[in-house]
Amino acid sequence: MILKVEFTIILDLVIMPLMSESRKREDLSVDDYVRGVRSDSRTILARTITLIESNSPEHYKKAQSVLKMLYPYSGNSLRVGITGMPGSGKSTLIETLGCDLIEQGFKVAVLTVDPSSVLTRGSILGDKTRMEKLSRRKGCFIRPSPSGGTLGGVTRKSRETILVCEAAGFDIILIETVGVGQNEITVRSMVDFFLLLLIPGAGDELQGIKRGVMEIADALLINKAEGDHKQRALQTKHEYELALKHLAPATRGWNTPVYTCSAQTGEGVSNIWDAINRFQQITRKNGMFDERRKNQNLDWVFALIDHYLKDNFFSHEEVQKALAKIKEDVLSDSILPTAAADQLLNLFFHQKK
Amino acid sequence: MILKVEFTIILDLVIMPLMSESRKREDLSVDDYVRGVRSDSRTILARTITLIESNSPEHYKKAQSVLKMLYPYSGNSLRVGITGMPGSGKSTLIETLGCDLIEQGFKVAVLTVDPSSVLTRGSILGDKTRMEKLSRRKGCFIRPSPSGGTLGGVTRKSRETILVCEAAGFDIILIETVGVGQNEITVRSMVDFFLLLLIPGAGDELQGIKRGVMEIADALLINKAEGDHKQRALQTKHEYELALKHLAPATRGWNTPVYTCSAQTGEGVSNIWDAINRFQQITRKNGMFDERRKNQNLDWVFALIDHYLKDNFFSHEEVQKALAKIKEDVLSDSILPTAAADQLLNLFFHQKK
Repeated sequence: MILKVEFTIILDLVIMPLMSESRKREDLSVDDYVRGVRSDSRTILARTITLIESNSPEHYKKAQSVLKMLYPYSGNSLRVGITGMPGSGKSTLIETLGCDLIEQGFKVAVLTVDPSSVLTRGSILGDKTRMEKLSRRKGCFIRPSPSGGTLGGVTRKSRETILVCEAAGFDIILIETVGVGQNEITVRSMVDFFLLLLIPGAGDELQGIKRGVMEIADALLINKAEGDHKQRALQTKHEYELALKHLAPATRGWNTPVYTCSAQTGEGVSNIWDAINRFQQITRKNGMFDERRKNQNLDWVFALIDHYLKDNFFSHEEVQKALAKIKEDVLSDSILPTAAADQLLNLFFHQKK
Repeated sequence: MILKVEFTIILDLVIMPLMSESRKREDLSVDDYVRGVRSDSRTILARTITLIESNSPEHYKKAQSVLKMLYPYSGNSLRVGITGMPGSGKSTLIETLGCDLIEQGFKVAVLTVDPSSVLTRGSILGDKTRMEKLSRRKGCFIRPSPSGGTLGGVTRKSRETILVCEAAGFDIILIETVGVGQNEITVRSMVDFFLLLLIPGAGDELQGIKRGVMEIADALLINKAEGDHKQRALQTKHEYELALKHLAPATRGWNTPVYTCSAQTGEGVSNIWDAINRFQQITRKNGMFDERRKNQNLDWVFALIDHYLKDNFFSHEEVQKALAKIKEDVLSDSILPTAAADQLLNLFFHQKK
C-alpha cells in the first residue's frame, strides 16, 4: 500500500512537472474534474485545486462550474484551523495529530494559508518534506498556500479548496496559518474549531501574539512541554487560563481550555482531539455549529463582494495614477481626508459613466 | 460669567427650537460658518455640526467647503476616547474629569459615538442633563451622537466634528462610546488615547467586555472603587494587570497601566490625566503620536472609499431587490457562496454599463 502512495507522490512531484508540457495541453472537462475528485484521484484533486487557484478568467469560469457540481457533496468534514508563531511547532503538531487521525481511520487534508509566503515560499516538495511522515500516509493530502497574491484572493481560494477536499471525501481538514496580520481572523472565518499553538514562556516573551487572536481560539495548546520545559509550560498554561477568564469565549457554550503537549513525543496531543470531539458534540447540540457555518457562508458572500468592489476600484487606471500623490498629500496634511476620498471616487465613477 | 454660559445654553436649547422655523430659512454662508466657529460662537458651532450631519447632497457640498476652510486650524487638540459597558460610569467620569480639566484652563468638547442609539437616543437635553455640572461650565461643549444611521456615516461625521471643534479652539476632545460591535475599533481609529472604563468584579462578571477591546486600550480604569468595593477594585486591577501581560501594548513604547478610581467622589481620577500627559510626552517624543495621526488620516480616506463603494452597491435597486432571496438561498445552502456573490455583482455592474 505504501508503495502505491509513494507512487502517487512521485506522480505529483516528479512525473507531473516532467510531463507538464504535454499534460497542460491535455485539457480536462468539467466532468473529468468532478469525476476525478469524487473518485478520490489525488492527481485530479491536485489539478482541480490548481484550476481554482488560477487567475485566468477562462479557468475561473470552469472552476466555478466544477465547484457548482461539487458543492452538494461538500460540508461533511470537520474544519480545524491551527495557528501559532513561527517556531511554535505547527508542522510537527499537524504531523503527529494527522498520523493519529489517519490511524483512527479518518481521511485528512492539510491546507496552509500564508499570504506572506507568496513571494518566498518553497516548492510543494518543501511543504511535503516538512511533514514527511504524514505525507507518506495514504489517507492524507497536503496542499501548500495558493499563490493568489492578495489576502482576499487567498481566502476565496482556500474556502473553495476546502469544498473540493470535502467533495473528495476528506473527513478532517486541517488549515495551518501563521500569525501575519489579518490571517488568523481570515482562517477563523472558514473553520469550525480554531486552535492557537503557543510555547512555554511568560510576560514579554509572549508579546508576539497578535491582538485578538486569543479571543478567537477555541483551545490553546502550549507545545514543547518536554524535559526542562515541562514546568514552565504548566506555569504558562496557568497564566493563560487566568487571562482567558477576562475574555468572552470564541464559541457560545464552550469554555476555551488550555492544554500542554509535546508534538515531538506525542504526549498530550490526544487531549486536543478529545477537546475537538467534545466541542463538536456541544456545538452541534446547541446549534452553534450549523449557525456558524451558515453565517460563514453569508460572510463569504459579503467578503467576496467587498473584495471585488475594492479590487475594481484600486485597479482602475485613473485611480492608480492619482493614488500615490493623494496618499502623499494626506500624509503631509495638505489635503482634507474627505476631499482626498472624493477625488479618488470621482475619478472612478466619472470614468464609468 | 456663569450667567453668560447659562444664556448660551438657553439659546441652544430653548430659543433655537422656538425660532427654528425662521432660523432654518436664514441660510448661513460658508464664510458665516467659518467665522462663527473660529470666533467661538457656540450657536454657530452647533449649526456647523448639524450641517455636517445632514444627509442632503446640498448640505454635503457646503459642509465640505466649510471643512476645507477650517482644516488648517484643526489638529491642535488631544483626542481621548472613553469606552465602557453601560453602567460603568462613563458620564460621571467625563463630568468629573471634564470639570477638572476646565478648572485647569482647558476648553473641553464632549462627543458621543453611539450608532446603537440612533433609534432610541434621547434629546440633546437628555445628554446635557446627564452631565449637568459639566454642561454648565463655560469652557465646555457637549454634543450627542449624530443620527447618521450607519456606523460608517457616524464615523465620517464624528471625525469631521472633531475637526470643527478643534478649529473652534477646543484643547481636549473627549469621545464617549459604548461597547456595541465595531464601535470601539471605530473610536480608536480617531483618537490619540483610548481609555477603557471597567467596574470591580471578576471572572464571569467581566465576560461582557468585547473581544479585542482590552488590546486597543492605552489605559484601564476600574471605576466605583469606593466604600465596600475598594478591595474588589484592587483585586480586579491586579487581575487585569496579569491579563495585560499577555497582550501587545496598544501603542508602541507605552505600557498600558491599570488604575482604580471613583468618578463619584473624584478619588483617583487625576491619575488618568497624569497618565494621559505622560503618554503624550512619550509618544510625541518617539514619534508615535504623529505617526498614528497621519495613519489615521490615511485610514480615514480608505474607510470613506470603502463605505461609499459598499453604500453604492447595496443601495443599488437591482441588488436590493435580489438580496433577500439570495441571502435565504445561501443560508439554506442551496447556492454556492461564490455564485451568490457573482449574481449580485452582475446585477450591479450590468446596470452600470
